[in-house]
Amino acid sequence: MNHLDTESVTAELQPLLVELIDLSLTGKQAHWNVTGPQFLPIHRQLDELVTDARTWADDVAERIQAVGGSADGRVVTVADASSFETFPSGSVPGDKVVALVVERLDQIIAATRPRIDRLDAADVVSQDLVISIVAGLEKHRWMYSTQYA
Amino acid sequence: MNHLDTESVTAELQPLLVELIDLSLTGKQAHWNVTGPQFLPIHRQLDELVTDARTWADDVAERIQAVGGSADGRVVTVADASSFETFPSGSVPGDKVVALVVERLDQIIAATRPRIDRLDAADVVSQDLVISIVAGLEKHRWMYSTQYA
Amino acid sequence: MNHLDTESVTAELQPLLVELIDLSLTGKQAHWNVTGPQFLPIHRQLDELVTDARTWADDVAERIQAVGGSADGRVVTVADASSFETFPSGSVPGDKVVALVVERLDQIIAATRPRIDRLDAADVVSQDLVISIVAGLEKHRWMYSTQYA
Amino acid sequence: MNHLDTESVTAELQPLLVELIDLSLTGKQAHWNVTGPQFLPIHRQLDELVTDARTWADDVAERIQAVGGSADGRVVTVADASSFETFPSGSVPGDKVVALVVERLDQIIAATRPRIDRLDAADVVSQDLVISIVAGLEKHRWMYSTQYA
Amino acid sequence: MNHLDTESVTAELQPLLVELIDLSLTGKQAHWNVTGPQFLPIHRQLDELVTDARTWADDVAERIQAVGGSADGRVVTVADASSFETFPSGSVPGDKVVALVVERLDQIIAATRPRIDRLDAADVVSQDLVISIVAGLEKHRWMYSTQYA
Amino acid sequence: MNHLDTESVTAELQPLLVELIDLSLTGKQAHWNVTGPQFLPIHRQLDELVTDARTWADDVAERIQAVGGSADGRVVTVADASSFETFPSGSVPGDKVVALVVERLDQIIAATRPRIDRLDAADVVSQDLVISIVAGLEKHRWMYSTQYA
Amino acid sequence: MNHLDTESVTAELQPLLVELIDLSLTGKQAHWNVTGPQFLPIHRQLDELVTDARTWADDVAERIQAVGGSADGRVVTVADASSFETFPSGSVPGDKVVALVVERLDQIIAATRPRIDRLDAADVVSQDLVISIVAGLEKHRWMYSTQYA
Amino acid sequence: MNHLDTESVTAELQPLLVELIDLSLTGKQAHWNVTGPQFLPIHRQLDELVTDARTWADDVAERIQAVGGSADGRVVTVADASSFETFPSGSVPGDKVVALVVERLDQIIAATRPRIDRLDAADVVSQDLVISIVAGLEKHRWMYSTQYA
Amino acid sequence: MNHLDTESVTAELQPLLVELIDLSLTGKQAHWNVTGPQFLPIHRQLDELVTDARTWADDVAERIQAVGGSADGRVVTVADASSFETFPSGSVPGDKVVALVVERLDQIIAATRPRIDRLDAADVVSQDLVISIVAGLEKHRWMYSTQYA
Amino acid sequence: MNHLDTESVTAELQPLLVELIDLSLTGKQAHWNVTGPQFLPIHRQLDELVTDARTWADDVAERIQAVGGSADGRVVTVADASSFETFPSGSVPGDKVVALVVERLDQIIAATRPRIDRLDAADVVSQDLVISIVAGLEKHRWMYSTQYA
Amino acid sequence: MNHLDTESVTAELQPLLVELIDLSLTGKQAHWNVTGPQFLPIHRQLDELVTDARTWADDVAERIQAVGGSADGRVVTVADASSFETFPSGSVPGDKVVALVVERLDQIIAATRPRIDRLDAADVVSQDLVISIVAGLEKHRWMYSTQYA
Amino acid sequence: MNHLDTESVTAELQPLLVELIDLSLTGKQAHWNVTGPQFLPIHRQLDELVTDARTWADDVAERIQAVGGSADGRVVTVADASSFETFPSGSVPGDKVVALVVERLDQIIAATRPRIDRLDAADVVSQDLVISIVAGLEKHRWMYSTQYA
Repeated sequence: MNHLDTESVTAELQPLLVELIDLSLTGKQAHWNVTGPQFLPIHRQLDELVTDARTWADDVAERIQAVGGSADGRVVTVADASSFETFPSGSVPGDKVVALVVERLDQIIAATRPRIDRLDAADVVSQDLVISIVAGLEKHRWMYSTQYA
Repeated sequence: MNHLDTESVTAELQPLLVELIDLSLTGKQAHWNVTGPQFLPIHRQLDELVTDARTWADDVAERIQAVGGSADGRVVTVADASSFETFPSGSVPGDKVVALVVERLDQIIAATRPRIDRLDAADVVSQDLVISIVAGLEKHRWMYSTQYA
Repeated sequence: MNHLDTESVTAELQPLLVELIDLSLTGKQAHWNVTGPQFLPIHRQLDELVTDARTWADDVAERIQAVGGSADGRVVTVADASSFETFPSGSVPGDKVVALVVERLDQIIAATRPRIDRLDAADVVSQDLVISIVAGLEKHRWMYSTQYA
Repeated sequence: MNHLDTESVTAELQPLLVELIDLSLTGKQAHWNVTGPQFLPIHRQLDELVTDARTWADDVAERIQAVGGSADGRVVTVADASSFETFPSGSVPGDKVVALVVERLDQIIAATRPRIDRLDAADVVSQDLVISIVAGLEKHRWMYSTQYA
Repeated sequence: MNHLDTESVTAELQPLLVELIDLSLTGKQAHWNVTGPQFLPIHRQLDELVTDARTWADDVAERIQAVGGSADGRVVTVADASSFETFPSGSVPGDKVVALVVERLDQIIAATRPRIDRLDAADVVSQDLVISIVAGLEKHRWMYSTQYA
Repeated sequence: MNHLDTESVTAELQPLLVELIDLSLTGKQAHWNVTGPQFLPIHRQLDELVTDARTWADDVAERIQAVGGSADGRVVTVADASSFETFPSGSVPGDKVVALVVERLDQIIAATRPRIDRLDAADVVSQDLVISIVAGLEKHRWMYSTQYA
Repeated sequence: MNHLDTESVTAELQPLLVELIDLSLTGKQAHWNVTGPQFLPIHRQLDELVTDARTWADDVAERIQAVGGSADGRVVTVADASSFETFPSGSVPGDKVVALVVERLDQIIAATRPRIDRLDAADVVSQDLVISIVAGLEKHRWMYSTQYA
Repeated sequence: MNHLDTESVTAELQPLLVELIDLSLTGKQAHWNVTGPQFLPIHRQLDELVTDARTWADDVAERIQAVGGSADGRVVTVADASSFETFPSGSVPGDKVVALVVERLDQIIAATRPRIDRLDAADVVSQDLVISIVAGLEKHRWMYSTQYA
Repeated sequence: MNHLDTESVTAELQPLLVELIDLSLTGKQAHWNVTGPQFLPIHRQLDELVTDARTWADDVAERIQAVGGSADGRVVTVADASSFETFPSGSVPGDKVVALVVERLDQIIAATRPRIDRLDAADVVSQDLVISIVAGLEKHRWMYSTQYA
Repeated sequence: MNHLDTESVTAELQPLLVELIDLSLTGKQAHWNVTGPQFLPIHRQLDELVTDARTWADDVAERIQAVGGSADGRVVTVADASSFETFPSGSVPGDKVVALVVERLDQIIAATRPRIDRLDAADVVSQDLVISIVAGLEKHRWMYSTQYA
Repeated sequence: MNHLDTESVTAELQPLLVELIDLSLTGKQAHWNVTGPQFLPIHRQLDELVTDARTWADDVAERIQAVGGSADGRVVTVADASSFETFPSGSVPGDKVVALVVERLDQIIAATRPRIDRLDAADVVSQDLVISIVAGLEKHRWMYSTQYA
Repeated sequence: MNHLDTESVTAELQPLLVELIDLSLTGKQAHWNVTGPQFLPIHRQLDELVTDARTWADDVAERIQAVGGSADGRVVTVADASSFETFPSGSVPGDKVVALVVERLDQIIAATRPRIDRLDAADVVSQDLVISIVAGLEKHRWMYSTQYA
């Protein structure tokens, strides 16, 4: 594995790991606290987002290990490193939840697309994984954002 | 639901929610970073712990909602409220991982047993849920701690 | 089984059986007659309530038999003994359905919590069953009532 | 759907709905209270009858909705409209249960066969559904009545 | 099979095949382009309609083959023979989608009921298939149209 | 069940039962003895025919019982009553097998279509069952006979 | 396969094939015509016997083919070659059914045990198959015959 | 776990473990040796009892380990410690089997109910487990004993 | 999603959507009208092609939505935009069907490979999807074309 | 079944039944009390052994019944007849457990191989069953004993 | 296990292991390179052969280990020890593939039948395994060779 | 497919096919011959590696066919072309097995990464397949090599 630059690959994947863990916790927070007539469909749609976010976080962390790095998904690390604004506490009406989820997905997508380019030189295997995650994030983004139209 | 004291029930369940979310993140961190000849069985045993911790966190949060409270599982809340020592970063040998998991399970069990007593007056339904979680935590504790003997 | 007071246990469980059967019939009535833009999610959410109500009714009736009593779930008995107001006939808009279901759940929960206390002396096995039913009823109650917020 | 006479179709299906709901409640009552050496096979055979009766009731009610009517399966309606004699309370020996079930099946079959003829003019789609229900009722009738021979 | 009039049976089934294929394509078009707060439940409800339409088209085409005819489901045939108005291009709000689907279902039902009568003389086996398709179409129609009420 | 003419219904169903049992035995005989380059697909296609024939024979026999008759599927009865020519012994090439199966299906279909008409007066429930069997036989007939074209 | 004596192996397996097919038809005949209070358990127990008999017949026939012989399971062959007394027509009470099934199983077992010995020289692979069938027949025999005790 | 009195909890659970293992062996013994017309339903009902007894024994033993004790399920221990009368050898008629099983269930229930009370002080988690086992034992007791009525 | 050129991505995906829908309709047309000794294996192989074509069409359409475009899969659009020659009407012998399917697959593959190159600049996520579709199309092509050799 | 010597077959199978029941109880005892770093894999490997031992015991007991004998699996019988040394009480380290299990498997295999020879004369059906059990025991033996090498 | 002659058992099983591994590789080679109109059914039939060959190779190798020998399935060993003629490279038409597979199956069967005899003295457990493998090989042989007829 | 250079794609994939087949045979060899205290987890971990290697070999071979080449997986080809050192014969201790597997995975990964680059020009579809295989190989490599740490 000597022709792989562990450091530069980890530099792209570790921030993504942090964002995906934060997304999975935020998704659960919204799942519990959403209110209003759209309660049930949003409550369930959020669980699908959480399931995907958890699977992707696991894939990213194990890829970091496979290239010789060390994944860091501890709560303190996530709280410090995450650049997302804190989700409001208490009950949140359904339309507000949708808006907040779209905002957050937009942020992760915007941060991750440049990573695809940078990984092209460093490791196409990791690049491949990140592409499939962005495809999934953008599909979720559509399925939430189309509820505005 | 007027004869339920939302506040006193939430006061018991919210700290447990924080501990269970921290446990699920810690379990994943260990799952990725464990090393040594026992790698494979510990790697898998940790995933079973994470699965249980996530299920219990969901049950506790939805019980808080059901009694009229509002669950808080945001990453900042967990990072602030959790009393656990931070798990070491980087690779951790298998026996060290086992010791750290047992230590953490001991802490949660010690904090939760008194909650069972206090919930007896406040809400037997919540008490019943917490009893079943303690049963599970103690079974995991045995299955990790017996590896010392 | 001579140390079990069949009569006092049956006195707590028989009214609950009546309420659960009525709840299952009402749930189906609403499932068929709900209208409006929320039709499909409410239509399906009601089937989950009916499934739970039928399972609980079966558990309660078999517990009555197990303690030496005789369960009575005949239609005439349920029609006479049930204290619920009759569900409106014909089409009912989604929000009205939600309100009526929450009202009925509130009534059953209010009637059943004191039964938990009274069963403490009579039979802890029956008490355990009733606690788990209340836990389920309160979770359903949250998932309907949060649609108001 | 203007060429369908909602009223005359509902007139045939609504009484069948009432009978099927009553049959499902009676089946459960017998399931709980049957006694004697044939207990276990009859206890189980009754659950199969209840499952079929519930499925058919749902199909009939949804067909009423589909032709523009409004299904009525409320407990008060069933108690008032059902022409069946009340099932005895308390324990009932196995052979008595079998006789009572056959009697009730005979009544429903006798009431439903003329409905097939009348629906021929009103709605062949509904007729098709009722034919399949009669086929099922007659098969159950054979499987209970052959126990006399 | 000499006592079956292949031509007259095919004359009834071929137009239905065209309508069902068009319905399946239209259903997918709506599934992708629906917008607004009801996005997710409508998006999913449309997939159930498409699944049914595809299954029915397959059954009808294979019945045409079984009576000695030749099914024609080519895109040019469907485009020429279909009498439905073209579905609007681009995004369509949820309530508009529901109205358009109900309109189309009404058209197919209106065209197909007389086919049931005409098939009575030609082939009761094909008639039986068409009756079951109408039953399904009318159930879908109810589940969309009730969202107006 | 007094308004059902057991004798005239049985008169239509008993010969069909004989033909279906013979068909299931013939199908197995061909399944074992077919040869040539088409061996495997014909070998498997025959098992699907046998599975259907067995299911239909069971349905017909239980319908005879349900209307108060007595089904007769004994080997001597089938050997005496069946009007089919005996299938050749020993190996049979694939194309010859296909021709013989189509011939036999043609015979059963020709004998059964008039039964549909005669059952219209006697028992529409039995008629409904026979229609669905003819639909299946004709579909199998197409799937074998199209191999000539 | 030149070192296998096709003829002598077939001479042992062909009669067993005939007996197993007859057993499967007789089992169905009894399944439909059994009566009395034991109806349901016997009705179901017979279906398990039929399932086994069909599987074994298939295994035996395919073994005949595998050793180069030609299996003969045509209805005329079975009717001619089977040495069993014809099962009574019409309804048969449960205990009589059990006695007749045991009698028939005794006959097949008695005829098959010597075949095991004769196959020892001819083909141990076929012998192994026949041994496993006798094991099954004797288990069924016990499960029917113990109902006398 | 220092606040748990290992000795007093084990003192309640170890005798229950012995009784449950004995019950599972006795259930199998009866499963093999039962005779008479009720053979099949009792033979099967006993396997359900054995499955439950094995699961409960495993739960009780692992709870003993979890509280720091050591479970003892060796055959010599069970033979010495069990207070049940030895089940008769050889064939036992169905009604006698039912009576013996009920007798044994009555003994275990009578011995275990006081354990629930004593565990209230020692360990509510173990108490919870024992309550659920008693619930199961009493349900089995009903399903056997109702066969007398 | 401002850094994605919706128009240029849609320009590559919309024609592919048209071709895949046409392929799914053509595949069904051939599935129904294929004849000759290879009927059954080709009949089934075509259903696998249809299943893949439908799944890919859905993926492509949802990707168009995800990048902010609007998918157009209406029958009129497909009929106008598709460049494929019309499939022959009526029965088509197996070898002719295979040739036509290979021809069509060759056309889609030839049209799609340049799209992979052009998407490299526009959107690697869409490129990734198109690559996986080409992989599948080429595998189907091999499995049909090898039947010539 | 008169040509089977019940006594001599039972003489071989009854001791094997005793050994297999003892093995299943010992396996569970070890499953609960094993300690040390190999805890988890041994804990699970033991459950696979217990599952096999229970299945084999059931097969052997039902074979005893099938040949006309009476199986004896009562706890007292097993405790008296078993020739194995008693398993140590309390915690046992993993390597010691493995050694004890291999020792016990060696004993059963050594005792059972001569039974295969003796059953050759008495009953080849029973012999076949015992051969398959020895095959399984020897595979388990390898999978435990290879852990020494 | 001292009464087993490891060497003589291994002498029979090791060559069979080599042949089965070669058969599994050859089966895959043919699966990939078969051509012509029978492509699909032969392609699939070969995968069933490969699955069986792999399972049997695993059983044989683990039996070698269980008797104290050491299985050798390394590619060099298989290439040196296998006596089969090398399968042709590149495309092979379907009928040629069938002929080559039958030829190879004939060789393995011819080599293995004498092993059954020789294992009778050495180890009946291994003999039993080899008998079941020959039964399977001969069934595959029939299903390929019958395609010549 | 004329714009694909069959030769240069096959030149990259054929050596990978050889390495994956060798890896699957080596994995099985190790699975059977591994010894020592880590026996069970390594024995199982190797089967997961073999399953992946077989699946990947199949994918690579079918891709070679799909681009017009001819896959060669014959045992003689693999023995000649494979550059791996021969795995030791006989028992191999667990830690030595782990080291040998890591060594071999390193060799395949080192040989395959440059193929990804070379395939970039020749065929991105094949490149995509190889990327996913390298991802899998590197994950296995981590899960074996971390056992050193």
